[in-house]
Amino acid sequence: MSPLKSWFSIPRGSHFSLANIPFGIISTASSTSPRVAIAIGDHALDLSAFAANNGFSDLSTIQPHQAVFSQPSLNDFAALGRPIHSIVRKYIQSVFLDTTPYPDILKNNPTLQKATLLPLSDVKTHLPFKIGDYTDFFAGLNHAYNCGVIFRGPENALQPNYKHLPVGYHGRASSVVPSGTPIRRPNGQILLDPGAVPKVPTLSPCQKLDMELELGAFVCGSNEQGVPIPIDQAEQNLFGVVLMNDWSARDIQAWEYVPLGPFNAKNFATTISTWVVLAEALEPFKTEGLRNDVDVLPYLRERDERSVYDINLQVDLKTSAPSPPTTLTRVNARNLLWSFPQMLAHHTITGCPFRPGDLLGSGTISGTSPAEYGSFIEQSENGKRAIALSGGEERMFLQDGDEVTIRGVCGTDLDALVGFGECVGRIEGAVGVGGG
Amino acid sequence: MSPLKSWFSIPRGSHFSLANIPFGIISTASSTSPRVAIAIGDHALDLSAFAANNGFSDLSTIQPHQAVFSQPSLNDFAALGRPIHSIVRKYIQSVFLDTTPYPDILKNNPTLQKATLLPLSDVKTHLPFKIGDYTDFFAGLNHAYNCGVIFRGPENALQPNYKHLPVGYHGRASSVVPSGTPIRRPNGQILLDPGAVPKVPTLSPCQKLDMELELGAFVCGSNEQGVPIPIDQAEQNLFGVVLMNDWSARDIQAWEYVPLGPFNAKNFATTISTWVVLAEALEPFKTEGLRNDVDVLPYLRERDERSVYDINLQVDLKTSAPSPPTTLTRVNARNLLWSFPQMLAHHTITGCPFRPGDLLGSGTISGTSPAEYGSFIEQSENGKRAIALSGGEERMFLQDGDEVTIRGVCGTDLDALVGFGECVGRIEGAVGVGGG
Repeated sequence: MSPLKSWFSIPRGSHFSLANIPFGIISTASSTSPRVAIAIGDHALDLSAFAANNGFSDLSTIQPHQAVFSQPSLNDFAALGRPIHSIVRKYIQSVFLDTTPYPDILKNNPTLQKATLLPLSDVKTHLPFKIGDYTDFFAGLNHAYNCGVIFRGPENALQPNYKHLPVGYHGRASSVVPSGTPIRRPNGQILLDPGAVPKVPTLSPCQKLDMELELGAFVCGSNEQGVPIPIDQAEQNLFGVVLMNDWSARDIQAWEYVPLGPFNAKNFATTISTWVVLAEALEPFKTEGLRNDVDVLPYLRERDERSVYDINLQVDLKTSAPSPPTTLTRVNARNLLWSFPQMLAHHTITGCPFRPGDLLGSGTISGTSPAEYGSFIEQSENGKRAIALSGGEERMFLQDGDEVTIRGVCGTDLDALVGFGECVGRIEGAVGVGGG
Repeated sequence: MSPLKSWFSIPRGSHFSLANIPFGIISTASSTSPRVAIAIGDHALDLSAFAANNGFSDLSTIQPHQAVFSQPSLNDFAALGRPIHSIVRKYIQSVFLDTTPYPDILKNNPTLQKATLLPLSDVKTHLPFKIGDYTDFFAGLNHAYNCGVIFRGPENALQPNYKHLPVGYHGRASSVVPSGTPIRRPNGQILLDPGAVPKVPTLSPCQKLDMELELGAFVCGSNEQGVPIPIDQAEQNLFGVVLMNDWSARDIQAWEYVPLGPFNAKNFATTISTWVVLAEALEPFKTEGLRNDVDVLPYLRERDERSVYDINLQVDLKTSAPSPPTTLTRVNARNLLWSFPQMLAHHTITGCPFRPGDLLGSGTISGTSPAEYGSFIEQSENGKRAIALSGGEERMFLQDGDEVTIRGVCGTDLDALVGFGECVGRIEGAVGVGGG
């Protein structure tokens, strides 16, 4: 399929080609109210201003709903449902087409262009959703296996339930922050000598601060409490996808997690990219995930096995040294045992209620070789093996001043990429809380 | 201290004496917008109508904030902070005093009485808060011990971390429902034969549906992400307390919970009582919790060891049979190893951000004898021992049609009780999702 051509200048290699049209929340120095926008090339199209200036005058279906574009989150837009998202996305694509049927809307309207097309460099992006609940899964089979090998050896690496259900835990919604937010190293209880008896913890800044390369999916649908979302309807309840870094304190986790799971090790921060790529934009990049050799229960069986995404993910680390960044990880997002529809079907099989803006995390995405591992705990074997960085530095876990950047992109045609932009966080030193 | 006397008729034995003044959200058939009220005796005082009719005309500090009483949740009122909660509570107490200094406000104003004092039987109560995040702890030492004995024996009943930190997990905020909401039995993956190899799950309605007798505490403060709430400031960040029933699917839990903790076993429903008893009203009932024989880290040390509450808790079970209810549990809420301030200090030591309306659960409160156990798993030893009910029935876990009622009350002077009302849920049959 040849790429869509636009009258508007979209740089080659942009993540935000005309094939994408991701949604987000922006503000600017001169207009500080957060509001809805899409990204296109190096610009944001301010949909609040676009709507206010009759940008949707040729789209009668959206006119009763235009107030959603002035909201400070995507929750109301998402709640309109996927058919509406599709109509809006396709309309915006058509407005930007070289051969647009609506030339008077924007192409031949320099006044509206000036009012609505803002350079991304002038734009502040915010959390795209007011997140009600956030759940993080553990669907990266290779990650689960690698971690299992570290702690239990290869024979028992995967727990008996792992291939029967998407293992997950409830996360802390208030801790999710937009890309670019500094990440404060957490304090917590750790065992300085895990082998000592009795075990006596110390209060300390985390000494094993880790990243986790993940995808996040925002939900647009809702279900009545008590009523599951069937697997065949799960996909239509998904709004879109972001990159996610689920920062993890491995030493806090090791001490606290039995028997109720990770808690303080995960609740200080999770970073997401701020432009949400619609599920529709990802349709052409659907692919099969990792094969499950277990016969899963019917409520988790998908008709179409192409239910994960072919996204090329990359993690770069820039330290405070003047040397260039080091690429830590290159891995494809298809390395998942469970898809987002399967996660949603499982999550709701009990009747657990969902609302627009709820967030699902995939779990760490890793391949089968170290250069494909999406966390330091895997790459350094929990601190046993140093990772060489450019400029001669080494790392086992993150140090203060380190900046982690996740990027993700679908496709190879530089005029038709569907990308996610960046998910960035830089580590700041822990606050003082007294010794332990 | 002799009880406060009121010109208003407050029945002896009411949970909502003049010493209480709990806050909630109400609506009525004739005025369906949810709004703020307090409970007094058998009535609710509609604070939205009270404010609109100059009820606060003698209270200048609250006048700029009166819009909070017309909100559909207590979040905005709570965010005003404990000094304001105290002023409002004490003012309302003074308005109802026999010797009120403000007789013209309500005592001698039958028109305003009619407009604002609504029989509780005519009032619908709602969730008191829009809950951002919900965390459930495991601070009931006896419960943790009893469950540990069942699964690991008395030698290893408590995990090594248990006395060093309040163990907890993030819950599902969307699943919290107000007292009276029917509870749908969840479906989920269970092992019909847990001993079989390999372990192959079945999709089934939960067969081990349990209650958990807990307290919940709502937070009124907030902290910047990355900045802990010190133990000495934790108490002032607590708004008030409710009764809680953290319904639990033990068979789903047993299969899913390794390694990331309980998930679907807990996310279908948690019931809370709807009148929030202010922390200030509970001050006279502070007492010492269970003694911790471990020297906890300084960030968890409290100046005053009287940091839990002397609340008499009771659980009754009414089946669908015509026989009278059975009292399953009588236990005091002091049976906690950790207080809510300790939970909050621990939860935020990483910098985890809190917002007004966040909810903390205590974990199941149990004593040391079966009649004091706050869950079926303890009382029936995970299904080994039948519990005799009135009318000759037996239970190991909850059956469809069973109704569980939790009550809690502080004090013994029937004219000055500080009570929580009821926390009620009745089990409905599972929805059909196909077999496994």
